[in-house]
Amino acid sequence: MQPDPAILVPFPADRSGRSYLCGLLGSGIRKSRSPDIHETEAAALGLRLVYRTIDFESFGAGGEALPNVLQAAERFGFDGLNVTHPYKQLILPFLDEMSDMARGVGAVNTVVFRGGKRIGYNTDASGFLGCFHDGLPGAVVERIVQLGAGGAGSATSHALLLRGGAGNIGIYDVDAARSGKLVENLVRHFGEGRAYVIPDLSALAEAVKKADGLVQTSPVGMSSHPGLPMPTALLRPEMWVADIIYFPAETELLHAARTLGCRTVGGGAMVVLQAADAFKHFTGVKPDIARMLRHFNEEN
Amino acid sequence: MQPDPAILVPFPADRSGRSYLCGLLGSGIRKSRSPDIHETEAAALGLRLVYRTIDFESFGAGGEALPNVLQAAERFGFDGLNVTHPYKQLILPFLDEMSDMARGVGAVNTVVFRGGKRIGYNTDASGFLGCFHDGLPGAVVERIVQLGAGGAGSATSHALLLRGGAGNIGIYDVDAARSGKLVENLVRHFGEGRAYVIPDLSALAEAVKKADGLVQTSPVGMSSHPGLPMPTALLRPEMWVADIIYFPAETELLHAARTLGCRTVGGGAMVVLQAADAFKHFTGVKPDIARMLRHFNEEN
Repeated sequence: MQPDPAILVPFPADRSGRSYLCGLLGSGIRKSRSPDIHETEAAALGLRLVYRTIDFESFGAGGEALPNVLQAAERFGFDGLNVTHPYKQLILPFLDEMSDMARGVGAVNTVVFRGGKRIGYNTDASGFLGCFHDGLPGAVVERIVQLGAGGAGSATSHALLLRGGAGNIGIYDVDAARSGKLVENLVRHFGEGRAYVIPDLSALAEAVKKADGLVQTSPVGMSSHPGLPMPTALLRPEMWVADIIYFPAETELLHAARTLGCRTVGGGAMVVLQAADAFKHFTGVKPDIARMLRHFNEEN
Repeated sequence: MQPDPAILVPFPADRSGRSYLCGLLGSGIRKSRSPDIHETEAAALGLRLVYRTIDFESFGAGGEALPNVLQAAERFGFDGLNVTHPYKQLILPFLDEMSDMARGVGAVNTVVFRGGKRIGYNTDASGFLGCFHDGLPGAVVERIVQLGAGGAGSATSHALLLRGGAGNIGIYDVDAARSGKLVENLVRHFGEGRAYVIPDLSALAEAVKKADGLVQTSPVGMSSHPGLPMPTALLRPEMWVADIIYFPAETELLHAARTLGCRTVGGGAMVVLQAADAFKHFTGVKPDIARMLRHFNEEN
């Protein structure tokens, strides 16, 4: 129409109460809890925030669509996106900047659009660290043994060495090439002696004997991969044990550790803590983590 | 990471309080008031709604981008879009369904994504009708003269004939071909005798003599096109006069009509009423029009 209402009236300069548009990129994510987690906390804070899932599976696309999707999200006025499987590494070439943590981990789960730039963060790593410090206050971290050298293991080891005060970390993985690659990367970032490969079960037994604690990041112990990622006979009561698996809430390994008297922490709060950190990146507003945890647990 | 929080936890089935994502497609729309109009009313209703402008000008694209933008909006979970200059007609080939009003006008300013379909509406037309009925209650509409046969004129004449109870409408436009085309279209929809061309100023004088009222839809009278779209000497005090221009709030024509004693209505409320109708299409919730008008006027 002419005159057109959308064009002619200037937007008031002193507009307050801006709104936030966020989303999650991934494949097979229609059931994600992230929209609820972010929108509910935003509403509690009095912020206008809408969070959408952009499910590549549902429109039959793969990683080749990433550049177009990112460009469209910027043009549509998204403030930021979370990124999940299988795009946490594939997205890296399309970012302008990355946090030290994200660069170290080599994966991004949070992208913020700001001033025409795409800035990548890894709040899986910071979320793990939050869980770890909350669940195991005062834990000695001079010598750590970590099970698993995949994406999760890269995030936890980087987080512990970069911001967790860890002395050194020994990495054990059933795939020795993978632990070698992670250790190489950790040594490049943090220096010689801060990380080393645990090549086999007998070396694992030796390392655990001297360890302050154990970080479990392999998939073994998940409901879909039940079992034990290492012999529980190696555990000592003085150790702490952190397992990032949260489904089930207590893995067989954690159960054995707790029975033995170890201090333990599970991965349950990580979902919320990674979301809380992403929320802060998207909005600049610090969310109420206790409220987010309560809401998450109520809805489960 | 593995396990991935976004994928594994099922979304609660009884989730209440869904959110709404809407936007405006157009060119040169960065200053649009629509985000504020929609978001403020949604917040007052306790709805989570974010409204974004998708400004083709700002990313150097034209109508050729429409199919991709619509597809991306669907994939990103938009509930609907408003459409403005210059895409209200260009968008038609990419819609699955249209309301009778939109089909009649031949233009769409509101698209709803529902059940995998794109449904087009014209709330400029319904917005005009709302303004007309509110501003001129009980107006006799047996014989109407309309100035202007452009996009706005198509909307107002269709609205008056389809849902406004109008008897017949004579169309005058400085571009005679344009009035011919509009009348042809109106006759096809509403039957012989419901619309006719007013070919020149002397015919206009004759038509106005017998008219119950006058609808002004040409751009003449806008701040950017000051002046009079017809000689004010033709006006009679018994007539009503509706001008869809709202900037200025009172055009020279309206001022002359009011001075003469005519009942008049300006286009001020149309911006809000078209938005209110679009809001209802997007959310299924009826907005509070009085509150929307108050907010709009406060912010002006």
